Amino acid sequence: MSMFSMAANHSIRPVQEDIIFGMGAMAEEAIRDKGFKRVINATIGALLDDDGKLVTFHSVFEVLKGLSDQQIAAYAPLSGMPEYIKYAIEATFMGYRPNGFIDGVATPGGSGAIRHAIWNYTDAGDKILTSDWFWEPYQTMASEHMRKIVTYELYDEEMNFNLESFEKSLGDLLDEQKRALVMLNTPAHNPTGYSLSNSEWMKLREILIEFSKDQENKIILFIDVAYLDFCNDEEREFFKLLSNLPKNILVLISFSMSKGYTFYGLRSGALLGVSSDEDIIREFKNVCSYSNRGVWSNGTRAAMETLIEIYKNDNIRKKVFEERAKHKQILKERAETFIQSAKEAGLAICRYKGGFFISIPHDDPMRLAEKLTEKDVFVVPLEKGLRFAVCAVSLEKCKSAPALIKEMMESLK
Amino acid sequence: MSMFSMAANHSIRPVQEDIIFGMGAMAEEAIRDKGFKRVINATIGALLDDDGKLVTFHSVFEVLKGLSDQQIAAYAPLSGMPEYIKYAIEATFMGYRPNGFIDGVATPGGSGAIRHAIWNYTDAGDKILTSDWFWEPYQTMASEHMRKIVTYELYDEEMNFNLESFEKSLGDLLDEQKRALVMLNTPAHNPTGYSLSNSEWMKLREILIEFSKDQENKIILFIDVAYLDFCNDEEREFFKLLSNLPKNILVLISFSMSKGYTFYGLRSGALLGVSSDEDIIREFKNVCSYSNRGVWSNGTRAAMETLIEIYKNDNIRKKVFEERAKHKQILKERAETFIQSAKEAGLAICRYKGGFFISIPHDDPMRLAEKLTEKDVFVVPLEKGLRFAVCAVSLEKCKSAPALIKEMMESLK
Repeated sequence: MSMFSMAANHSIRPVQEDIIFGMGAMAEEAIRDKGFKRVINATIGALLDDDGKLVTFHSVFEVLKGLSDQQIAAYAPLSGMPEYIKYAIEATFMGYRPNGFIDGVATPGGSGAIRHAIWNYTDAGDKILTSDWFWEPYQTMASEHMRKIVTYELYDEEMNFNLESFEKSLGDLLDEQKRALVMLNTPAHNPTGYSLSNSEWMKLREILIEFSKDQENKIILFIDVAYLDFCNDEEREFFKLLSNLPKNILVLISFSMSKGYTFYGLRSGALLGVSSDEDIIREFKNVCSYSNRGVWSNGTRAAMETLIEIYKNDNIRKKVFEERAKHKQILKERAETFIQSAKEAGLAICRYKGGFFISIPHDDPMRLAEKLTEKDVFVVPLEKGLRFAVCAVSLEKCKSAPALIKEMMESLK
Repeated sequence: MSMFSMAANHSIRPVQEDIIFGMGAMAEEAIRDKGFKRVINATIGALLDDDGKLVTFHSVFEVLKGLSDQQIAAYAPLSGMPEYIKYAIEATFMGYRPNGFIDGVATPGGSGAIRHAIWNYTDAGDKILTSDWFWEPYQTMASEHMRKIVTYELYDEEMNFNLESFEKSLGDLLDEQKRALVMLNTPAHNPTGYSLSNSEWMKLREILIEFSKDQENKIILFIDVAYLDFCNDEEREFFKLLSNLPKNILVLISFSMSKGYTFYGLRSGALLGVSSDEDIIREFKNVCSYSNRGVWSNGTRAAMETLIEIYKNDNIRKKVFEERAKHKQILKERAETFIQSAKEAGLAICRYKGGFFISIPHDDPMRLAEKLTEKDVFVVPLEKGLRFAVCAVSLEKCKSAPALIKEMMESLK
């Protein structure tokens, strides 16, 4: 880059090569050279069938393609179509709606929801708390808005949620800032697949309530549930624990149509707010609606109309849920196969409970990922290990990959 | 709102009723009560047919509905599909591409492009320069990002572009900040319909070059061309004047599919950059791609695929252009009728050259807009007058409205 620059200082950042994109491109080249069957491309964060084709839910696209041109062409209201928000809330909580005041604002996917949480609930220069294994774009989103990420340890020694580290980190942050935005990605955490158990949720709730007793503390618990629809319905039980929290704890939840409706490219989600205090939710709605107008104006109407149509018609909803259940089962079998093979190969993996990814801890992930390309295995190297996308790889390949990873890991010693 | 608040201070703002929405709702009520024929609803910023139905280009929606589910479902690359960017550049400049380095980044509509220009090319607290008649969301977007809007006078006494006021304001801003983001909405300015003439563009260019001689000055000229596709092709000639500017003048242009392709609700646009310096454009691309990931991740793929399909196929493009030309003509006739009637009624209006809106100067716009509802005429009150959407009102109503406006104006005296 030239010494001379036109961008504002805060926007000038070292240019990093996109590792996921780079690995993906290498995988595609290998597929061209050697054929799809011989290559394991576990870099893609979307549901693919066994032949590597993107899975799309027929029942959802039938609705989309049946919309009138006007339904697609018109602007949606700034904060989202009211019925869309209503059904986004229903789709998120199902039978486990917490007590309290709840509202939402439409956003472009879950990413837009994260943006609003960061911008509207922290100040410039603030630190945001998440786990040490985290989806790397959190970093980009924090940094874009001049915030920083600090982390607690996700796992304790038994590979359970590290409540001690969480409590310590949150306490430190509140001491420093009095305001803490906590970004929790559960259930089916990206990249590890971890989900907090109900008893862990209960303890986490107690920790939050304890800290909230200092009336000056403001705790914003942001829950990223991008992969929620690929968990069992009962895993929504923790939502009930978000009931009746003190008013200086605000819960934010990101709804997304990307994975659960295979609407990745249509950019439709919502930020939902839950509070025991009506005024706090009114403020949330006002603040985030203002942000919508101030950032991207309004959301993709076609996606909103589709969700509305699905939830208004029991028959359609049933078809969508059945189609999703089928793919949930495929995903589950792939993950179980990977875990079983890892066990057999003696490959240590992060504790996985659900979702699109399994992670393998390693202290030189970049080198290991490169080494694996020799075996035509393509994965994403993270800070603390490798991310293997079971969502994108056939059962057969999920079976063979762990031994190859273990072998290459050994070869680096 | 409660005294107790969870949002960050910078995000808490007085809640204003949405005037456009409020006026629109009143118009709809009047239509229900009295019938569509008797009501003039000139609040809507989209092309409607004479019966008040949203115009959608059949040729464009045919392409959209012909896309495969996979084309719609997949994520687009973070900075946009490369072919989309290529064709967005082609669609914007047509035969009038400036010399220089040009690149672009996909954004959700033109709004997203404005967001990136504001965030990446000004600093917190900075002032941004635009004309005193301006699209009010500029204010929201500036304020969301903790910037301020300052204005020059759009018109001189002859209702031409006020170069003197522009030069003075830009000079003051550069003295103060050394960095100036200028937001120019031309051709077919919203809300007035003004377009800079070529000779005005040449003089504006000279002013910019003069200021650029101070090497410490950085001038970012952002051109909002949301209504470009409803102007004659020759009106793109000014783009050639953006060639070979000094490297401390960066030109940014917002491309949008909202109006030109009736894709309002699909949220697809791009921010384009033009510079004589390759490094500056490389920086632009890096900085705005980073922002994409940091704000909304990626854009609506279905819209990108549609633009690509249109521009790849001469036949389809021809059909789209013909359909657009038909509606351009309808729009032109409506505007000419309004202008002629205004003349006959002795109603002074802002100088209009094209686009969706005509403005009527007034010093108590809110009161006048309210008064007009008595005549079943619904318009948007702005800071400096009324905005009448010729895009949304039949020829017949464009003919009758000016006399009604004049009458109500007189009644307030």
